[in-house]
Amino acid sequence: MTRDALFQQIKAKKSFLCVGLDTDINKIPKHLLDSEDPVFEFNKQIIDSTKDLAVAYKPNIAFYEAMGAKGWTSLEKTVNYIPEDIFTIADAKRGDIGNTSSLYARAFFENMNFDSVTVAPYMGSDSVKPFLEFENKWVILLGVTSNEGGKDFQFLETEGKPLYQHVMAKSSTWGNTDNMMYVVGATRPEYLQNIRKIIPDHFLLVPGIGAQGGDLEAVCKHGMNDHCGLLINSSRGIIYASQERDFAERARVEAMKVQQQMKVFL
Amino acid sequence: MTRDALFQQIKAKKSFLCVGLDTDINKIPKHLLDSEDPVFEFNKQIIDSTKDLAVAYKPNIAFYEAMGAKGWTSLEKTVNYIPEDIFTIADAKRGDIGNTSSLYARAFFENMNFDSVTVAPYMGSDSVKPFLEFENKWVILLGVTSNEGGKDFQFLETEGKPLYQHVMAKSSTWGNTDNMMYVVGATRPEYLQNIRKIIPDHFLLVPGIGAQGGDLEAVCKHGMNDHCGLLINSSRGIIYASQERDFAERARVEAMKVQQQMKVFL
Repeated sequence: MTRDALFQQIKAKKSFLCVGLDTDINKIPKHLLDSEDPVFEFNKQIIDSTKDLAVAYKPNIAFYEAMGAKGWTSLEKTVNYIPEDIFTIADAKRGDIGNTSSLYARAFFENMNFDSVTVAPYMGSDSVKPFLEFENKWVILLGVTSNEGGKDFQFLETEGKPLYQHVMAKSSTWGNTDNMMYVVGATRPEYLQNIRKIIPDHFLLVPGIGAQGGDLEAVCKHGMNDHCGLLINSSRGIIYASQERDFAERARVEAMKVQQQMKVFL
Repeated sequence: MTRDALFQQIKAKKSFLCVGLDTDINKIPKHLLDSEDPVFEFNKQIIDSTKDLAVAYKPNIAFYEAMGAKGWTSLEKTVNYIPEDIFTIADAKRGDIGNTSSLYARAFFENMNFDSVTVAPYMGSDSVKPFLEFENKWVILLGVTSNEGGKDFQFLETEGKPLYQHVMAKSSTWGNTDNMMYVVGATRPEYLQNIRKIIPDHFLLVPGIGAQGGDLEAVCKHGMNDHCGLLINSSRGIIYASQERDFAERARVEAMKVQQQMKVFL
């Protein structure tokens, strides 16, 4: 998907919501367990009930990988089911030496037709660039993560600035605003002003709203740009709003609450 | 596997060779393509022909993931086929927020019974610790990687020392020498002396011998400790020694060449 197509979708839906499909077979409604592929069935109903409110879906790959080959099949079916005009994110946090990163890129961009994949920066340029060789596909590089451990290394002072700023400044030269985004956790909105000085025009994928306690207003205030520039992810708060038969409708209610707030900020 | 069991194996086989099962369906001998699961068939024959010479096998997960659900099945069959007393490494370079890293740990340690998994450090402690909660299982954390891009961030000066030294010093407090190892690329043996000052007793997984040009002697000189402390990986140089029907015997010849050198250093 192109940056422009994504922005058009944001304007049309008045939303920059990304729904995280962190689908755990132990948390989905019990009645789904009788279906042939409960994880896919759950995702399908979540997608059906939120697709006019969400501009992106983000399956976290760990949830599928934990189920082995079967999980991989559920993932493939899920990404095929998501409407073409909605942005898809393989939240995989991959990254390896060049020839190996190319294989990961093939896995997510060719075999599965994801629009983007999240990538970890530690191994540097040649671990990231293979993902950038696919037209209209995106790398979403880890910048500042929302978890507690994010502080261990990302904020280390390196040559006068924190490591995450180095990562952003350097990596932004590997691609451009049409094929790179950055993960910036919503639990750290105070850093967004500095981040916008380094990468004013890139889209940011912002997890941590909802269960992890991030603040939507602060994120919008400091993070928005003239192309919106934000994809805000919510996973548990939406998909597990109910664990009963009404889970899909309740997910819709929660998604709409977020979308209604977003509409104001746009 | 315990550290002691690994060391006993090293002494018995007079080897610290890890064979990288980077099995690419486009590179394996053509006659295998008729078998039901060519990737597994290739691995099976490589394992049969090298299992008395290798103390560890390391499938790089990207090669399997690039084949989707089918690849995942080949991987499961491969890890089940590796003899119990040989150390297994899922070279996955995973790492995510705590609850998600737990799922990756489950995927590799429970569903597939790998002894260890490679993990990327950028997300910090709570992305690593879930892997350390499994008895006799190991995290192999990226320290200094062998690729060109490894220089982009790993050597940034942070509070008086390069980032990778921070990563090693800090992360070594999260586990111990019985459940953590570090990846240190063989293309950078000059750093091993400094690394041994920080983590004298940990095992190091050393890729980059062979195709990537690393020097075994230099690695042994600066990296060995009283428990050997090294697992040296070779992938392409062994498994693709021949692309004909004799591939398994030729792989054995190459593995034996490395093992014979190792014997001297032990």
